[in-house]
Amino acid sequence: MTSTPFDFAPLFPAGLPAAAAKWTGLAKYSFIGGNNDPDQVPVEGLIEAVDAVLRREGRTLATYGLASGPQGYRPLREFLTAKLKADAGINCTADDILIVSGSLQALDLVNATLLARGDTVIIERDSYQGALNRLTRLGVNMVGIPLDGDGMRMDALATALADLRARGIRPKYIYIIPTVQNPTGTIMPETRRAELLKLSQQYGVPIFEDDCYADLIWDGKRPPALHAMSDTGNVIHIGSFSKSIAPALRVGYIVAGWDVMSRMLALKTDAGSGALEQMVLAEYCAPHFATHVPKLTRGLRVKLDTLMEALNEQFGTSAEFEDPKGGIFLWVKLPDNVDTLKLNQAALAAGVAINPGPEWSTDKNYGKSRLRLCFASPSHAQIREGIAVLAEVCRKEFGVPARIANVEKRARDDADAKMAP
Amino acid sequence: MTSTPFDFAPLFPAGLPAAAAKWTGLAKYSFIGGNNDPDQVPVEGLIEAVDAVLRREGRTLATYGLASGPQGYRPLREFLTAKLKADAGINCTADDILIVSGSLQALDLVNATLLARGDTVIIERDSYQGALNRLTRLGVNMVGIPLDGDGMRMDALATALADLRARGIRPKYIYIIPTVQNPTGTIMPETRRAELLKLSQQYGVPIFEDDCYADLIWDGKRPPALHAMSDTGNVIHIGSFSKSIAPALRVGYIVAGWDVMSRMLALKTDAGSGALEQMVLAEYCAPHFATHVPKLTRGLRVKLDTLMEALNEQFGTSAEFEDPKGGIFLWVKLPDNVDTLKLNQAALAAGVAINPGPEWSTDKNYGKSRLRLCFASPSHAQIREGIAVLAEVCRKEFGVPARIANVEKRARDDADAKMAP
Repeated sequence: MTSTPFDFAPLFPAGLPAAAAKWTGLAKYSFIGGNNDPDQVPVEGLIEAVDAVLRREGRTLATYGLASGPQGYRPLREFLTAKLKADAGINCTADDILIVSGSLQALDLVNATLLARGDTVIIERDSYQGALNRLTRLGVNMVGIPLDGDGMRMDALATALADLRARGIRPKYIYIIPTVQNPTGTIMPETRRAELLKLSQQYGVPIFEDDCYADLIWDGKRPPALHAMSDTGNVIHIGSFSKSIAPALRVGYIVAGWDVMSRMLALKTDAGSGALEQMVLAEYCAPHFATHVPKLTRGLRVKLDTLMEALNEQFGTSAEFEDPKGGIFLWVKLPDNVDTLKLNQAALAAGVAINPGPEWSTDKNYGKSRLRLCFASPSHAQIREGIAVLAEVCRKEFGVPARIANVEKRARDDADAKMAP
Repeated sequence: MTSTPFDFAPLFPAGLPAAAAKWTGLAKYSFIGGNNDPDQVPVEGLIEAVDAVLRREGRTLATYGLASGPQGYRPLREFLTAKLKADAGINCTADDILIVSGSLQALDLVNATLLARGDTVIIERDSYQGALNRLTRLGVNMVGIPLDGDGMRMDALATALADLRARGIRPKYIYIIPTVQNPTGTIMPETRRAELLKLSQQYGVPIFEDDCYADLIWDGKRPPALHAMSDTGNVIHIGSFSKSIAPALRVGYIVAGWDVMSRMLALKTDAGSGALEQMVLAEYCAPHFATHVPKLTRGLRVKLDTLMEALNEQFGTSAEFEDPKGGIFLWVKLPDNVDTLKLNQAALAAGVAINPGPEWSTDKNYGKSRLRLCFASPSHAQIREGIAVLAEVCRKEFGVPARIANVEKRARDDADAKMAP
């Protein structure tokens, strides 16, 4: 009698997201997610670091937040003040930094501090899926601003801000990934950053600067962060160790003034982010970050070359893309008749995982024939094989790329190879 | 002109919690929080474990969720299935377990899956502050059920359930800490657990079982978990490594059926909990958990003895308490004229941090003259000194304990000491 299974369904509140599907493992050829190159995890360095820091301070694991309080392990915040100054030109102290459980928690805390249902925010038309999904879930209106090769277009932003003001709407923030934009891979030049700050000031709309990918730039050079260029404290800056060290560690950070920081701290009710991961990162990064990152980016650049070559070989002119200036992803345009949501389903069945464009854009129609391909995690062989399988699936589903182009291309390559000395 | 500081205040949404105060360091004598004994962190064992697991699997840190998917590192879930079976009688598989970032995230996920503003839940009258605060923030009505030496009183629960049903209210869950109750330290006997399950079934109200402190029992013996005793799947069970290994690691877990699990997974949008901490725990706990915990609890028991002796010496009959069966805290009753919220302020100024009773009770008046004292973190000397300072402050503020009792007690102790061989 009592062994009838208890039914929880009538207890679920309205508006709960759909149930998750059971996890079925990673795809054979996975071009999704911010995963990194397993060969580039600095395993030996992390082992040395964890050994040293635990021998010295392991006892402090008995205390929530170690001896550093709710903003996170102080040596990691000290490292970040030096790193942010050197790399991004940001002047801040350890008290301006909050360590969080990955930049996703940063998004949650900034959103909880500033947003209510029905609010409006400005965002790049094509942007990070995790940011878009959160805003959708929160019932926030997104105004997408188109991008060009230099990032968010300032003419379009000015028009949008003026239009919103005319309608009596003050957006809560401008969310932007100015340094290796996700998914387009652009870097906003310094002059445009100055224009953006001016518009932000003019309309009283703060900037939410997501610099998660900013460490991964091929030539190592980047403009100062928006946070560094502002003299009014109107920029909330976030970053992460997921891309520079390892995503599974779940350590990110927020740089903000006390007016915002004190509100975020009141909302961070998790008794601190993981202490061991903060300790290991502080111990490893202080001596090694500056040499590790260029080595990592060199490897990523070579993988990107493999991906672009594979796309050229397999898709020919059917795949259009710009050579990104850094990062771990490529934003690809396929012919207009391709629906990447459908392509994704068919590709998954063939063992290839991609990010369909509509999930990475505020404009679902614009994103329809686009896709994001992440290249850091798969091996060079997997990249080549996976793109070949993807082209095969795309051809079967949508008739592009035409087989003949591929064969012609191969024939030409073979001829070239024969002519080589 | 543009250097006027940007004002975020007009952008904050309604209902934001009050700004946090700046952190000013740990109190000299800290009797608060779930902090543990720094001498008992198994530092050497953790170093060996992290070394071994990183050498073997460090490359997988490049992948979100390692190769284990969104429910957490599989070897840790495998360890937990064995541990939960051995210790709590729970039959479950790794697929029934979700690893979370401390049991606070477990509270958040269960709450988000089941609660909406205006809902009602049942809870022990005196309960964990983190649970009470969350329910208050969510706008959920709490019906507090009195406790006795065996935990939540079933007569009072039956009355409350009948009363709520008569008013057309179906509570969303019964939140309970049956095994080393926080703050009272009681353990609910098996027969009462059976009664509780019967009432849960009869009224269609599921049980939310928080077993966070269940590893820390002086005699090592505990009744089966409510989850283990249920044959209908009406119990959601949570636990933590914060009390058994180290709180700063932030690793907890939820045991639930797929109907609830699939909803929680959809709400867990943090890209996984910290992987390194999960890896270290799995590697360390599989061989060492069963020997580490009894050693830890023996040390805690001795600290509890020191605390109870210090209270007897300093407060005499003014401090009433039951000897708890395990855990890291003591629930103390002071004379009715003592207001522990005020005592806390005065004590903090003297370097002593306590948990005032009203913050740990649904009945603020019942909690008024009560306090929770955590004894795992301070040293024996700090316990003795801190309680002496607390008594001094309490005497000055509220006239109790009377000085004379203390002096008499000391004089007697001195006489005893002289008579000893």
